[in-house]
Amino acid sequence: MSGCKGLRVAGASLAATILLATSGAIADERPTMAAVLEASSASDWRKPSSDFLLYMDLPGGRVIMELAPDFAPKVIENIRLLTRSGFFSTSVILRSQDNYVAQWGDPNDETDNAQPFGDGAATVAAEFYRASRGLNFVGLDSRDAYADEVGFVSGFPVGRDADDGRSWLAHCYGMLGVARGEAPESGNGSSLYVITGHAPRQLDRNVVLIGRVIQGMELLTTLPRGRGALGFYEDREMQVPLLAFQFAGDLPESERVDIEVLRTGTDTFSSLVESRRYRAGDWFVDPVDKIDLCNVPLPVRLAE
Amino acid sequence: MSGCKGLRVAGASLAATILLATSGAIADERPTMAAVLEASSASDWRKPSSDFLLYMDLPGGRVIMELAPDFAPKVIENIRLLTRSGFFSTSVILRSQDNYVAQWGDPNDETDNAQPFGDGAATVAAEFYRASRGLNFVGLDSRDAYADEVGFVSGFPVGRDADDGRSWLAHCYGMLGVARGEAPESGNGSSLYVITGHAPRQLDRNVVLIGRVIQGMELLTTLPRGRGALGFYEDREMQVPLLAFQFAGDLPESERVDIEVLRTGTDTFSSLVESRRYRAGDWFVDPVDKIDLCNVPLPVRLAE
Repeated sequence: MSGCKGLRVAGASLAATILLATSGAIADERPTMAAVLEASSASDWRKPSSDFLLYMDLPGGRVIMELAPDFAPKVIENIRLLTRSGFFSTSVILRSQDNYVAQWGDPNDETDNAQPFGDGAATVAAEFYRASRGLNFVGLDSRDAYADEVGFVSGFPVGRDADDGRSWLAHCYGMLGVARGEAPESGNGSSLYVITGHAPRQLDRNVVLIGRVIQGMELLTTLPRGRGALGFYEDREMQVPLLAFQFAGDLPESERVDIEVLRTGTDTFSSLVESRRYRAGDWFVDPVDKIDLCNVPLPVRLAE
Repeated sequence: MSGCKGLRVAGASLAATILLATSGAIADERPTMAAVLEASSASDWRKPSSDFLLYMDLPGGRVIMELAPDFAPKVIENIRLLTRSGFFSTSVILRSQDNYVAQWGDPNDETDNAQPFGDGAATVAAEFYRASRGLNFVGLDSRDAYADEVGFVSGFPVGRDADDGRSWLAHCYGMLGVARGEAPESGNGSSLYVITGHAPRQLDRNVVLIGRVIQGMELLTTLPRGRGALGFYEDREMQVPLLAFQFAGDLPESERVDIEVLRTGTDTFSSLVESRRYRAGDWFVDPVDKIDLCNVPLPVRLAE
């Protein structure tokens, strides 16, 4: 029966395969990501301001998004006005395009029944980038296809141009952006999208990014793909209603989720990046020692 | 009512937003991807050999994968033996981890009920890379985070090292790989995975890639995410059965899907890459003029 046992052992290790790929192993001079996080202290984590957390409730559960007012203050404030005016009360998921985006907004936006913007503006000056000055930029040593410099600001992936002094949020998986028409200022926040596939970095500086999903990403990625062009749901019955879309700060404190994100300007974060750059352990036969901006995990946890 | 009309126009353009981002527009000296494909000739397309096409039938439909015998001939032949021995008749989707992989195989692989490999071997020498010599490598001008040189071979994304003369398939979205345990040769093809998120290129040369999904990707990406560690389905009822898993060449010709992929060594493909590198049209305010290996589309069409 040793042959059979061999099969079972092979099977067991197959199931464990990417366990090793993701958690790394133990016996190496550089720590694994799990070890770095376990050794983190309370001060390595921060609670995002409830004024810059969005809750989107879908039938399957809640998606939580952290906003980045350092990069897109104007459109974020417009979304706040739209939200308080009840604009999103009739919104639905409009499209899900495989390896690209899920997008929501007003399903009647081209009809006489279009939902009014209320106190929100119909146009907002585009915030495609901002001055690098004044940002606490934590650089990442990586050869990036799209930007000369990449790194993080307050937990968000960022591209930077050394010459022109500008910085911008990068279209990584899970990033939240403002759909727009041909006019840059047409993105007023009434229709938003989340990246659900390989980072479409060609959109950087062409669309306004405003934050990222920090919980519930799978509620968006598992949406059925639309069969219309660009993944639009041609059949209205496939559109998923937004049960609620609101800022955490507009809810009573007792109804807010106590969530924390790892600070990116810390030694712990530097160690985490290095643990992902060089994959310690026996499983990796060629531990690479390289990393890509959108492959750096940005850990989130529910506060204790 | 001009104010209202303005709203409607804004709404209309919001819905159209990423239409422009993906299809580009018309009035530019460089063509859009749609124009390049429309101008393609019959000889720009090829029919993959039915001996190297896998059909995986799930309850939701068929996933079609093209295999790359130039890179992993041994494990592909072992999968053929496993398939003909009926190994996959009891296989299920074992895990779906968000932004990472979907993986299938024998749900009983650690028990006395493990499915026998039949004529298939329990181990196969790992094919992590191969000699660059003899490959028709079509280079891509891109600054890649992981490989010194990147490009395409027969429609597959490839990394290459100029110094050591080696080439390997790259872990882009949709690529198909062989799960393995700690021993490199433990990946015998009895458990396979597909990349369903941002390219985890750190896996390159650490796991054997054998091909890519060319149809039905959304059947894998919309699978519910498993709640166990690494997205394993702890609840067996969440496991999705493989209704069939077979080589197209093992089916009667009348039951094969007539599918074509764009050749990558052609002027048409070069034009397509350039259409994606520089986004023509009015929508893009900053058309980037850069591209990433895993953002190059590899078009597929059903033959007429």
